[in-house]
Formats: sequence, structure tokens, C-alpha cells
Amino acid sequence: MSKSNYSVIGKRVGNVDGVEKVTGGAKYTVDMVLPNMLHGKILRSPHPHARILNIDTRRAEQLPGVKIVLTAKDTLGRKNGIWRNFRDLCDEEILCREKVRYVGDAVAALAATDLETAEKALDLIDVEYELLPAAFDPLDALHDGMPHIHEDFERNMNVYRQIEWGDVEEAFSQCDHIREDTFYCSSQAHGCLEPHCALASFSHDGKLTVWTSTQSAYYTQLLLSDMTGLREGDIKVIKPHVGGGFGSKLSLDSAQYCAALLSMKLTRPVKIVLTRAEEFGATKRRTAIHYKVKLGAMKDGTLVARKVQAITEGGAYTAMGGTALYLTGFFSSFPYKFDHYQYDGFRVYTNNETASACRGFGAPQANFVSESQIDMMAEDLGIDPIELRIKNAITPNHEIPGQATIRSCELRQCLEAIDKWIKERGPLPPNHGIGVSAYGFMSGGIFNWIDTPYAFSSALVKINVDGKVDLFIGANEIGQGSNTTLSMICAEELGVRLEDITLHTGDTSVCPVDLGAWGSRQTLMSGNAVKMAALEAKKQLLEVAFHTLKPNVVYDLDIKDRRVHLAERPRRGISYFDVVKDAIRGKEGQAIIGRGHYTPHGKGMISPAYSFGVQAVEVKVDRQTGKVELKKIVTAHECGQVINPIGLEGQVEGASVMAAGWALTEELKSRNGKILNGDFRDYKMLLAEDVPEMILIEVDSYEPEGPYGAKEAGEGLTVPGAGAIANAVYNAVGVRITQMPLSAEKILQALEEKKRTQKEVDPFEAVA
Amino acid sequence: MSKSNYSVIGKRVGNVDGVEKVTGGAKYTVDMVLPNMLHGKILRSPHPHARILNIDTRRAEQLPGVKIVLTAKDTLGRKNGIWRNFRDLCDEEILCREKVRYVGDAVAALAATDLETAEKALDLIDVEYELLPAAFDPLDALHDGMPHIHEDFERNMNVYRQIEWGDVEEAFSQCDHIREDTFYCSSQAHGCLEPHCALASFSHDGKLTVWTSTQSAYYTQLLLSDMTGLREGDIKVIKPHVGGGFGSKLSLDSAQYCAALLSMKLTRPVKIVLTRAEEFGATKRRTAIHYKVKLGAMKDGTLVARKVQAITEGGAYTAMGGTALYLTGFFSSFPYKFDHYQYDGFRVYTNNETASACRGFGAPQANFVSESQIDMMAEDLGIDPIELRIKNAITPNHEIPGQATIRSCELRQCLEAIDKWIKERGPLPPNHGIGVSAYGFMSGGIFNWIDTPYAFSSALVKINVDGKVDLFIGANEIGQGSNTTLSMICAEELGVRLEDITLHTGDTSVCPVDLGAWGSRQTLMSGNAVKMAALEAKKQLLEVAFHTLKPNVVYDLDIKDRRVHLAERPRRGISYFDVVKDAIRGKEGQAIIGRGHYTPHGKGMISPAYSFGVQAVEVKVDRQTGKVELKKIVTAHECGQVINPIGLEGQVEGASVMAAGWALTEELKSRNGKILNGDFRDYKMLLAEDVPEMILIEVDSYEPEGPYGAKEAGEGLTVPGAGAIANAVYNAVGVRITQMPLSAEKILQALEEKKRTQKEVDPFEAVA
Repeated sequence: MSKSNYSVIGKRVGNVDGVEKVTGGAKYTVDMVLPNMLHGKILRSPHPHARILNIDTRRAEQLPGVKIVLTAKDTLGRKNGIWRNFRDLCDEEILCREKVRYVGDAVAALAATDLETAEKALDLIDVEYELLPAAFDPLDALHDGMPHIHEDFERNMNVYRQIEWGDVEEAFSQCDHIREDTFYCSSQAHGCLEPHCALASFSHDGKLTVWTSTQSAYYTQLLLSDMTGLREGDIKVIKPHVGGGFGSKLSLDSAQYCAALLSMKLTRPVKIVLTRAEEFGATKRRTAIHYKVKLGAMKDGTLVARKVQAITEGGAYTAMGGTALYLTGFFSSFPYKFDHYQYDGFRVYTNNETASACRGFGAPQANFVSESQIDMMAEDLGIDPIELRIKNAITPNHEIPGQATIRSCELRQCLEAIDKWIKERGPLPPNHGIGVSAYGFMSGGIFNWIDTPYAFSSALVKINVDGKVDLFIGANEIGQGSNTTLSMICAEELGVRLEDITLHTGDTSVCPVDLGAWGSRQTLMSGNAVKMAALEAKKQLLEVAFHTLKPNVVYDLDIKDRRVHLAERPRRGISYFDVVKDAIRGKEGQAIIGRGHYTPHGKGMISPAYSFGVQAVEVKVDRQTGKVELKKIVTAHECGQVINPIGLEGQVEGASVMAAGWALTEELKSRNGKILNGDFRDYKMLLAEDVPEMILIEVDSYEPEGPYGAKEAGEGLTVPGAGAIANAVYNAVGVRITQMPLSAEKILQALEEKKRTQKEVDPFEAVA
Repeated sequence: MSKSNYSVIGKRVGNVDGVEKVTGGAKYTVDMVLPNMLHGKILRSPHPHARILNIDTRRAEQLPGVKIVLTAKDTLGRKNGIWRNFRDLCDEEILCREKVRYVGDAVAALAATDLETAEKALDLIDVEYELLPAAFDPLDALHDGMPHIHEDFERNMNVYRQIEWGDVEEAFSQCDHIREDTFYCSSQAHGCLEPHCALASFSHDGKLTVWTSTQSAYYTQLLLSDMTGLREGDIKVIKPHVGGGFGSKLSLDSAQYCAALLSMKLTRPVKIVLTRAEEFGATKRRTAIHYKVKLGAMKDGTLVARKVQAITEGGAYTAMGGTALYLTGFFSSFPYKFDHYQYDGFRVYTNNETASACRGFGAPQANFVSESQIDMMAEDLGIDPIELRIKNAITPNHEIPGQATIRSCELRQCLEAIDKWIKERGPLPPNHGIGVSAYGFMSGGIFNWIDTPYAFSSALVKINVDGKVDLFIGANEIGQGSNTTLSMICAEELGVRLEDITLHTGDTSVCPVDLGAWGSRQTLMSGNAVKMAALEAKKQLLEVAFHTLKPNVVYDLDIKDRRVHLAERPRRGISYFDVVKDAIRGKEGQAIIGRGHYTPHGKGMISPAYSFGVQAVEVKVDRQTGKVELKKIVTAHECGQVINPIGLEGQVEGASVMAAGWALTEELKSRNGKILNGDFRDYKMLLAEDVPEMILIEVDSYEPEGPYGAKEAGEGLTVPGAGAIANAVYNAVGVRITQMPLSAEKILQALEEKKRTQKEVDPFEAVA
């Protein structure tokens, strides 16, 4: 169907939950209150590494208003982790039994009638610790003689991943030019406006209901089942509106687990909301990574081989760190065709807050490194950096051996579009520079960490006698707009209006299973499930309409804007509403139900589809302070058929700003494992006034695996920012920063270093 | 399958929601609170019949805290009624526009920040009325010259129903003996512990959610759609636990409508809970009926013909009164085989509270009349009253021309069982008497008042990978135990345990349509839908198990207690849980779904099945006061396969007590249309201490139309009580009370009258 024929998708529509949100009606978990509800708090370790000798809860229990204090001895002693088939990687008890491994590790949980009493009671729990030596730097922690953070992991080596195709050593020997560089990517806090929180209510008949701010209600249900011993079906997880989720709300968190545990012991509702300090110090964060990267090319700019070594800072537990380790390796080859590639990644435990999934999931780090080095190589070879990229860019139907099958890819057009924009921009003022970065990102991961036998995404469509359509999905709206996107897909496929769709979501007890919001999977995976369900329902309507319209068999029927008609002769048709009534009567009074599901097959190890794009960032660098000012962010990207243009713009802009913040200012500082800037005043996220003009160039593409040709949009834009900014800074003032963040201090230092070095090299320059 | 083979049904189990109820966790609409919630109140007419000249709401609106005051001019002006295809019988605006028709008719609704303010504001609404002459007695209201209560209904004749087969006039001429008697059945209040109440919340995006105490969430949704103009699918009705519903919670009530209307105007949640006085005076009540009955028999006790004329007191509106009018006509022939029968029923409007559905729905009235007269006839003929009943009792596979097709019927066995019990009881002490009454009742009505195109009952069963089964039903648990019954049917059919079932009910947005709890329809109708859905799901499991077990094709597979096995060789089998996992994997990771539905066909006009029974009540009458003391209630009844014996006992006992209260003490008194005893102190329901020993004799039966052979149990036991008590009083002290209730005053008066009459007849007796 040609794009212009769509009646719902591709149109600019406000989010389906927009009115509720802007009028203040939307409820988040933090807003929720139940009758008889208690408030829970979690006691956390002040030490980065210590043995727990004793926990005495008596004084706390005696405080009036305190209902219970729980420690590890009150649990089943199970260890939590998302890789449920690899029990050694399930290494987090949540309530620590023998040791604490970072400042923030939980040692006790309590519930009281009010928050003040709960807070006060924390101080009355007496924990006797034996302090242990700690390791904070993964490069140190790797060495013999360093403290053992987890017993069974020698040299704190948590996970090792290798990716390899071709023969890099042989290939390097053929290259005209080789570079080897080291880089460091810093961590980043998630900074969700709604903190991690959960309200758990265990009933006298053994059923647990948990309202929580999560990216995957289904994962939360499964992991709570693992940890509490309750059957999956006896746990109902409800995901109300969610105030942000960028990866940390994917694992089971301490608020969810402790609230559930407390409620199960007391048979009363218990609510736990993490404080902002806990949010910064005791959740999860982006993985910091040390890289050593070797890149070989021919004189003409052909990239031949790349070898990447990465040491990632794991922090105290595995969480989803293994996947970040893998993905940063895979995306370090992106978005170029390498015949030879080798990646060796090491994840190392430290006594810091755990590093895990964070928007981009290893790809932004890879891209900062790779795209910085591409510019360095282009300079070495004397080739225009965009030209170099075009020469090596991935093209459609590209196969990465053993890893990925790429179908749609309009990267070259994106590069050309950015090149055109830069040329039109013309000469820049002094200290201005434009840097570019090309990237690719996935449309959902082919990762079954959790070992579910269910399809990755499922949907159920029910058409009622008034023509209203109930759409049941397990997909998780977390502010990214998936509720709108999926409703639009449903309306388009059924041929009804968006207002005809009633969405049912965010409740594991009534919604079909979906793995949730991570890896940019909802539009493609959940979208395919919704489209299939809608089609299955539509076919049942068309069957009835065929009896009425009796078209020649060469004609097809379709439904558009509530009219069932001959696809090729739209004027011959009947009302959708009449057909629905007939169809339901024909089914002996049963509503029409269609079901759909999607699990990727035959697409390699990573993702069923990839989006591509190029970002150009124009910066101005203040030579006096080193401060980088963003002037423009221009993105040319392709994400297949756009479902909701407004939603797309919001996602692209939001992700670009998150990337820029990570690149420039969002440094999560710690000393001896203790976060030093764990609040919104000292942890510098970009503010609205820091955000420059943003230009979006939409490059047409069509992804055969996606619904209506759609694929990822949004998360991918966290990828190119840091590389583009690093390149822009270099182009503005000639300093190459390879150690993130690109802070004013670091740039100023580099400028001074450069001045000093230039002086040393040529002492006569000053007088020239 | 033989009864002893069932592993779930037929077992004594506590209600599935019992733990929640007894631990206080169960929430009723009256318990519910929403943030930002307002309290609504309804201004009601103090006059039985008056024209509304003007309503001035200004003073009320100016009271601080009052948010809005609504009158008929703020509505769409539509008229409410359950017979949606007969618009002239939809005669209730709820908020009156031109006239009020009873003391309690609603004229305005308001919402305020707190209940006290709302109550205070009621007094500040100035309504100018022009008083009109009123009619309170249907026998008066019928006459020319009486006030016209509804314009288009001459002589206040609201509905006329006729039922006829054979030729009564011809038949009477052949009879050996004919009696003609008049009777009067009084009204009854429902007396639900939870009053009518609703919490409505209209959102900024145009969706209305209503939590309410209802017998049919679906009807409430449809009727609210009619009245508000919202689409059905934009209205979500949630039925929490319900504190009693005996018929009055089936129509749309003033709390539901006014709360919805107020919330729609304010976009804030509004809650309305009727007061106990409103509950008695401004809802609905049992229909009071005047009867004239002619009965003809042969000397040998063969009943030949009956002619019944009934005038029912309608009250102000139609509501569901037309059905009570019809059913009292049909059940006046019950439970006997009449070759000739004629019924003429007239429903007459009066200026009293509306009479509508009330547990038994016309049948208790019919039975009081019919069974009193049967005893009178038996005495006339000198035949034992049980023998007379046995001679004429309906037998299996009996056809009532144009009305009913009766399959199972073990009435004769019930009569024999009671006869045996009475004989064993032996001689009674003075002033004791035993009366019997035989009855039959329906298992759901074949009435599509509401004109739904949906099946009458629907269910959806979803089997999840952990073996847990989600059962989605639209059936309405209102305390009668349907949640338990339907869960048991589901568990039995699937071969799992009751604890494997997770019930989803009481939410129109996620549950399939079911007409709700009325006419004793849930076990048979919803049960059939559940059984079908479970079977459809089970078949999908068996399909997979066949591959594994590979039995010879002559063998069947079945599932029992979580084991899939050869039906005839139970030892050859595999785990249900393994089969479920396999089946879901085989369906590409989709949960197993089965759907079921039921609509009666080919069963006549009334019901798909009928239960039968006989009740014997032993009373002791105090000759000094006229007070009747219940000594024993013995019920022999047949209701097909018993699903939950505990639930059955509770239903039979509860219904019997309700019947006895109606017979003896529950007189709803009024003067000039105003209820005089509208509270629980003056309206005398029976207390626990009034309830005698109850004996239940279960007579085996099997109803081919019901799930596992089950049919109605519970509501039917409201039917025989009054007749049995009237006969017992006669047998105890020789007075025949034909005008309900059988109050102490009336009995005393009759005793005195009898004494006086006897004296008059034989003045010499005293000296004999």
C-alpha cells in the first residue's frame, strides 16, 4: 500500500494518554495509596565491601509504629538475576546475607505506619560489619591479590565475550595504515523523574499484587516469582504510567522485592519509594568502559579490519551487564562493513554500584570510540570523513557473519543528506566546529535472558458490537509513546479510527505476555503482534462482508475509516459497524477476537532489524573555560515507515539530549565507592536552555520485517551524540578528547596541553 | 461420567472469595474512595404526584463546597427502561422533568466536597410543585376519573399479559368441583446490607468508569450508554464485591445515573451512596398482587383447569414489572399438569415506589396463591394434600404448550420424601401444624429485554505456562457464590485444581459479556459457557498429549487432578504441567485460549430448565397473640448435579428465610405513598434467632441442558415458603389467611373471627 493511502499511521497525532497526562489525571506508582498502607524503607550499607557479622533489629522493632524489620534470614535465600539459565550470573540476593559489595547494598527492610517513623527506625538497626579491602577500578580489580568480590570469580572476572569474523591479524598485515587508540567511556545515571518504587499488596488468600514503575511488568512478575517462591500466576504486576525508564527499571529492584517481602509477611499493603540519593547510588547505571581499538585501512579509505578490546566496569553484580558487554562489541563494528573484526570484552566486578542496561546498551560507548577513531583515520589518510564513511557504510541486505542479517539500510543517503546540510551551512565562525557520527541501532534484541517459552510479543484484539475495539497488549509504555504507536497500528490494520481503540495494558493478569520496553523493541515486535491480531480479526469481518458484497473473486476487500469496501473500488462498500454486528451475530453472539504474536527468527543473534542514521553536531567551544556550547543538532536518519511523526520527533530529540548530557556533563563521581554528586543539583543533566536547535531529516526506508515497514526510532539517537560532539570539539579547537566526559576542565586542560606541546615542538611559532 | 468420579464438583469447598471476605480485605463499592472525589446527593420529591413548576438551584450552588447542581434540563432527556425495544415502557427519566410520580422520585442531583455539605445543600434547592391527586391502590387506579400517572396509559393500565392453553371455560363445565378464591400478596423490600451506590469517574479524554453495586455490570453499561449518549465501549462498569442484590440492582438506579452525570459535568470522581431511607423508599420493591383464582378438579383429585386473574401494583414506573406480571402468570400453573389454563394479568401504575424484580420474580406470589388453594381443594375433596400433589405433579419431559419444555423433574420423589418426613415426624403438639408447598423454578430466563446481540453468557479460559488458568467471565457474583461455582466447573472440566484457577470478573472492559445475576441463570447459563470454554482449551492440550502418549485410537484422553491420561487407563498418563508447556511452545509461544458461550434455544419462552421441590414448614401458633413461631423448615428439592454443596445449603437457607420473612413480618407500610417503616428497626426482617432448624433433603436429578447436569438452586426457595406457612397455620389453628402478610394481628383477628363465627353457627357449643 502506498504511504499516502494510510488513514491513521504516518499522521501527526497526540499521544493517546496525552490528555490524561497533561490534565494531571494520569496516576504513577508514586501517586498510589491504599487503605491500611504501610511505608517501607531499606537500610543500605555505608561500606563498599564488608562482611556482615550481625544485624540486630530489636531496637528498631521496638519503635512505636514499626511493624516488622526483615533481613536476609527472612528470605528464601535465592539470588536474583535476569539470566535465569545461568545461575552463576544470578548473583544478587538484594537483601545481603554475608557480605555487602557496594555502598548502597541493602541489608534490611522495614515497614512502619508512616514514612518518618520508617526513616527513624533505619538508624535503630545495628549492623556489625567487618570491613574488607575494596576494588573500585576495573583495571586494578583484574589483578591478582585484589579483593575477591564474588567467591567463584577469579580476578573478579565476571563475564568474557568474544566476537570474531575474518582474520584481523592477517588483515592488519595487508593494511596501508593502522591506528591503535585507547578510549574511556564514563558512566551515566538514569535520572528518571519517577524514582524506583513499588506498592505491594499481599492478600490473605495468597495473591500478590505489585504496582510498580517498571519497563517490563512481565519480567518483574517472573523475577518476583523466582525470589518469593509464589507461582507466576499468583503474582499480578500492574504498571501504571511510568515516569521514565532507561534500562534500570528492567531488572528486579530493591523497592519491588522488599515491598513484596514486607507485604507478604504482614498481609498489608507496603509502599517503597527510593529517595533521590538511593536512585543515584543504589540502583543501576550506564557501564563505564575502557577500550583499546586497532583500526586498519587502505590508502583509498577502505576500512579493512578492526580489533577491539574492552574492559567494562561491572560494579557489584552482574545484572544485565553481560549484554552491554556483548553489544558494545557488536556495535564497535557499526555501521561499516568490516571483512575482519575481532572483539574481546571483559566485564570486571568492582565495589561500585552495578552497571547494567542503559539506553543504548553499550552502543553509545562503542560509537564514541569508533566514530572518534574514524575521524582520526580520515585525517591520517587525508580523506573527507563523510566520504570515508560513505565508502565503508553498510548497505541493504548486508550479512555480518554469525551475527546479523541486515535488510533495510539507507545509511548512505543519510550521510549524503548530512553532507549536503554541512555544505549548505557554509563556513563557521571561529571556535565553532561540526562533528559527525554515523550509527546504527537495533529494533529489539533476540535475547531470551529470562528463558520464557512465550512469544516475545503478543496481542489480542477484540471487536465489540458497538464497533469499539479492545486492544490487549503486554507492551510497556514508559513515556516513549508505544501506547499510541500500537493503537495506531491496530486502527490502521482494522480500518477504524484511533478513537475506536480501547487500550488494555500494564496488567500481567489480563494482558498477554510481552517482554517489555527495552532494546527499542516495541514498535517492531509488539507492532507485528498487534498487526497480526488486527488482521486475524479483520479477516473474520471480511468473511461476513464477502457474503453481503459478493464481489467477483478477483477483487479483495479492505476496511478503511470504518468502511468495508472493494480494495480497488472504494465506492462499493458497506459500513464497518453493520459488518461488525452481523459478524457477532454469526458467531452466536461472541465478540470477534484476533490474536497475534511475534518472535524473531532467522535474523542472527542481535536483532530482527536495524535503523541507521547520521548526526551532525555543531558546537562552539569557549577557549577561556573549555565549555562546550551546543549550537545545532542535525540528524538524518531512517527508521522505516514512521508511525507517529510527533512521537518520533520527541524520541529523537529526547535521546539526542540524553546523549549530549552524557558526553558533556553527566559525570557520576564517586570516592571509595560513594557517589559524590547524587542529586539533581550536583549531577548536571542538560536543561531546556542547554538544548540547541534540532533539525530532523527523515530519510525514507522500508523494513520488510517491521509492521508497515517500521523499525526502531528513539533509543538509537543516544548512540551518535558523544562521537559527533568529540569530533565537533576537535574540528572547533583542535583537541581530541578520548576520555569521557568532554568536560570543560578536560577540554581546557587539553587546550593548554596543546598550546604547551606546540610551543615545545616549535619554539619559534610564537614569533612567527 | 459417574458422580463419584468428579474431583472438584460436588465437593464441599469454601467460597473462592471467602478468605478475602472474612478477613475484611474484600472491597465493596461503599468502601471506595478516589483522590479528588466528591460526594453526591439526590433531592427527592416529598409528594406522591405533583407537577414541577420550577426548580431554583441558586441558593444551593452558592453554598461553599457545592460544585454543581443538576436537574432534568442538564440531561439528554432520555427515558430509562430495560425493555429497550419497547420505548413506551421506558418511562423513567430518573431526574424528573415535568412531574414527580412517587414520594422519592428524583428531581435534582448535586455534588459537594463533603457529605455534610451535600446534605445541607439539598435543603437549599427550591422546588415549586403543583400538587396533583394521586392513586395508591391499583384497584382504585384502574377506574375512570382517577389521576393519569403516565399520559399515554389509559386507566393507568401499564402492561397486560395473557397466557392460555386448552379451554378453561369448557373444562370447568366438566369438573366435579370448582373453587374460586381471592388472594393478596404484599410487597417486600430488598433489604440489601449494601445500599445502592456508585462511584463514577469521567476522564478528560471522555471515558467513564463506574464502580457500582450491581447485579449486571453489562446492563449498567448499556443503560448508562443509553442515558448519557456515550458509546458502550467508552463506559467501563466495575462490579466490586456486592453486599446483596435481589432484583433491585438490575435496573439502572438513581445513584449510578446521577453519579455518572455529575462526574461527566465536573470531570471529577463523584460517589453516591443511598441512605437506608432512600433504600426503602426510592429504589424498587417486590410486586404486590391481587389475585382471583378459579380451580376445577375431578372427584379423584385430578386437577383439570385453572383460571387466574391478577392485578399487580406497578408503582410509578415500569422497570421490570412486565416480567413479574408474566412470570406470576406462568408460575400460577406450577408445578402441576393442567390441560386447561388461562391467565390474565394487569399491571397498574400507582403513585407508590416502583415494583419490579425481586428474588422469585412473581413466582412466590403465584405459589402462595396456588398452594393455599391446592390445600383448600384437597380439603374440599377429602384427599391428602400430598397425595393430591403427587397425582398432578409435573413429570419429566413435560411440555407446556407455547411456554415451556421441561426435561428433568423429580418433583414426585420430592413429594414422597416430604411425605415420609412428615410421617416420621408423627403427631404434633397442640397448636403446631405442618404445611407443605410444592414449587418449581427456572434456571435463567429466556428474556432478551435489553436487546443484546451477544450470547447470554460467555467465558474465556486462558491456560498459562505455569499451569495457572485465567478464567474470564461476565457473570456477576453478588454473594450467591457464582464465582466459586464457575471456578469449580472450569477446574473440573480442565482437570486441574481449584487453586489453579484465577478468576477475572466484574469489569466490563476485560470480561466477556454475560447478562448478569438474575432469574437464577449463572450456574446453568454461565456454567455452560465456562464448561465450553474449558473444553475448547482442554482439547488443545489433549491434541498435544496424543502425540506424546500415542494411544490406540479407540482410547480417549482426559485430564484429572493435573494429570493427562487415558480415560480408561488412568495409570498411563503424563503431567498436565508438561503438556501445557509443550502446547504453548507448539503454538509459537501463545497461551492456550478457549472460548465458550451459551444462549438458550428450543426451550420455549421462559427458561432452559426447571428445578422442583417441596417445602414443609412446621409452625407453632400462639393463640393469645397470633404470633407464628417457625419450628422446622424441611426442603426436599432437586437441582440437578450439585456443584458446591456448601454453597447450595447457604442459598437454600437464605432464600427460605427471605420467604418466611415476606410471609410473616416484612410488611412495607405506607400512607399517602410515604413509606412508614423505612428502617431496619421498624421493617421487620427475620433475625438469626427467628430461624428454625432447617433440613435439606437432596433428591438426585440430572438436567441434560445444564453443565454436568446442574440447574437452579437458591432463588427457587423463595417460592414455597409463604404457601407452606399459610397451610401450616391453617393446620395448626384452623384459620386460612389469604391476605399477606400472615401477621400476628391478622391471625389473631382470624382466630377471633373463627371463634365468633363458630359461636354464631352453634350457640349451644359452649354449653356442650
